[in-house]
Amino acid sequence: MENVRVGLWGFGAMGRGMAKMLLTKKGLDLVAVCDLDPNKVGKSIFEILEVEKGDRKDVLVESDYKKIFTEKCADVVLLATDSFVVNAFPKIEYLLKQKVNVISTAEEMAYPQSQSPEIAKEIDRLAKENGVSVLGTGINPGFVLDLLVLALTGTCERVDSIKAVRVNDLSPFGKAVMEEQGVGVTKEVFEKGVKEGTIAGHVGFPESIKMITDGIGWNLEKIEQTREAIMSNVYRKSEYAEVLAGNVAGCRQCGYGYVDGEIKIVMEHPQQILPNLEGIKTGDYVTIKGVPNIDLQITPEIPGGIGTIAMCVNSIPHIINARPGLKTMLDIPVPRAIMGDIRDMIEK
Amino acid sequence: MENVRVGLWGFGAMGRGMAKMLLTKKGLDLVAVCDLDPNKVGKSIFEILEVEKGDRKDVLVESDYKKIFTEKCADVVLLATDSFVVNAFPKIEYLLKQKVNVISTAEEMAYPQSQSPEIAKEIDRLAKENGVSVLGTGINPGFVLDLLVLALTGTCERVDSIKAVRVNDLSPFGKAVMEEQGVGVTKEVFEKGVKEGTIAGHVGFPESIKMITDGIGWNLEKIEQTREAIMSNVYRKSEYAEVLAGNVAGCRQCGYGYVDGEIKIVMEHPQQILPNLEGIKTGDYVTIKGVPNIDLQITPEIPGGIGTIAMCVNSIPHIINARPGLKTMLDIPVPRAIMGDIRDMIEK
Repeated sequence: MENVRVGLWGFGAMGRGMAKMLLTKKGLDLVAVCDLDPNKVGKSIFEILEVEKGDRKDVLVESDYKKIFTEKCADVVLLATDSFVVNAFPKIEYLLKQKVNVISTAEEMAYPQSQSPEIAKEIDRLAKENGVSVLGTGINPGFVLDLLVLALTGTCERVDSIKAVRVNDLSPFGKAVMEEQGVGVTKEVFEKGVKEGTIAGHVGFPESIKMITDGIGWNLEKIEQTREAIMSNVYRKSEYAEVLAGNVAGCRQCGYGYVDGEIKIVMEHPQQILPNLEGIKTGDYVTIKGVPNIDLQITPEIPGGIGTIAMCVNSIPHIINARPGLKTMLDIPVPRAIMGDIRDMIEK
Repeated sequence: MENVRVGLWGFGAMGRGMAKMLLTKKGLDLVAVCDLDPNKVGKSIFEILEVEKGDRKDVLVESDYKKIFTEKCADVVLLATDSFVVNAFPKIEYLLKQKVNVISTAEEMAYPQSQSPEIAKEIDRLAKENGVSVLGTGINPGFVLDLLVLALTGTCERVDSIKAVRVNDLSPFGKAVMEEQGVGVTKEVFEKGVKEGTIAGHVGFPESIKMITDGIGWNLEKIEQTREAIMSNVYRKSEYAEVLAGNVAGCRQCGYGYVDGEIKIVMEHPQQILPNLEGIKTGDYVTIKGVPNIDLQITPEIPGGIGTIAMCVNSIPHIINARPGLKTMLDIPVPRAIMGDIRDMIEK
């Protein structure tokens, strides 16, 4: 069997991480990389990644996606460029018409049925028409606050309510994320930013909540979200941010899913730099009330960057195996690490 | 769409639990129940279960499986009669020839490829020939020490080693289980029982270990298992067992999976009555060393009886949706609770 051919659209932190991971896998060729950054265009990915090329074919970063993403140019393209469905859609549409499968890191693509049902239908139609499939995934949405929760409910006779919490350390992320989360600003600036939409917080609660309710068959009536400042009592300094005592260390985002007139799903995702400075332990926590009750913790949390990179790469065999159409974590077998030859995971 | 029709073969603790759970689900009819127990045969399942019949059709327990499990008599039959593949096989073969899907609680059926590869092939062939599919599942094997582990590896770039531990309280189980685990006997009797095979301990390590190694692509060289007595320092008394201080409270079973000449998977499953009397907390624990490291705990453990019942029932839509053949937790989407109409989970 031929090697599995993978393309990458987006060569930022996530894309580069995926490339590094892909280069360690057997039975797989990274065949094309697209990015607009003038510092990368035309350069060898091996040079940028500081990875030995060995006897592999060289791959140069290309800015014109039409040049490299031609018909059936790859078995799958990993799209790591956007957070929102509306921005990712034209790229997905283009790729589907080239008859390649797509895995997207866009948070909203984890369950586009939630906020963009019409676009979701169109993606499904395009995918079926071209005999390929599309999946959005990542650590969250994609795993911690949805697939992991759903998997636990599989051991339940009945679910009454769900609480899922992800407490993480934002420090490793770059300047853009610091700004999106309001790290370092005053309370006033934070609140103005939330009101004006410049402080976006976490993208993904509507996707995770709707994936769960659709997955277990609850009728979701509405979703509410709140974003509030996590005020720091101490001075915090990390690589990309500085927080004076009394200023904002991050954003506590909460999401609520209403079913049958009551809140049945609660999600909390406080994201800040250096929570340990105030004695806060990071971790992923799931509490299910029902038959039985389940109380899970993963401490520290599964790291966001590695987790998202791995979930996308580890989903490659499953999206190749899938029947054509728009897929979600509800549809495919559970992604797992790829420690052998990836071709052994592809159905003949 | 017609209601999903479910049959039950085996009306012991698991079968009765499944029946009770099934009767709470929408869009589903329990159509036939088979059991040999003369105290149950001919009786209404509603009488046995002490559940209101309401306007449902009555179902009488039947001892002759050929009378009720006729061609296409059900969309799926849940088979809760055996632990071992060799014993479950003739029943599975019969059901497949009747063109019904099968979900089995037999621990070895969770991954028959491990210890019975020839029978596994034959089951796959029979299932395909008859256009239906077969799945073995339960809490363990089926979830805690395999599917949950595999799901966590999905967030990993690389896995170096895996340790999975399930510490549970055996007290709720009946006399047969107490004897299988050696609860209450002396150390000498325990060791003789292990040697002679009368004290079997947990069935499922070879299945869980092989499912993981096949799932992530590790080449499994061999499996080793040990069974040792858990000696009680205190007097313990539960509904079905009594343990004098100095006697056996249960069985600590360990399993080791060798990959590339070293132990890469360690499983521990100490099962005893009333571990709390010696300050031991029950729980499910998974530790993955790799990129990233992951440290998960579920405390207390997901209860075994409810968990097995739920995993089987919650897998019904997925085995109906599956392409024909022998399926494992590696193949189907992750089972989740069924809180709505089960028919909404069936692909048209």
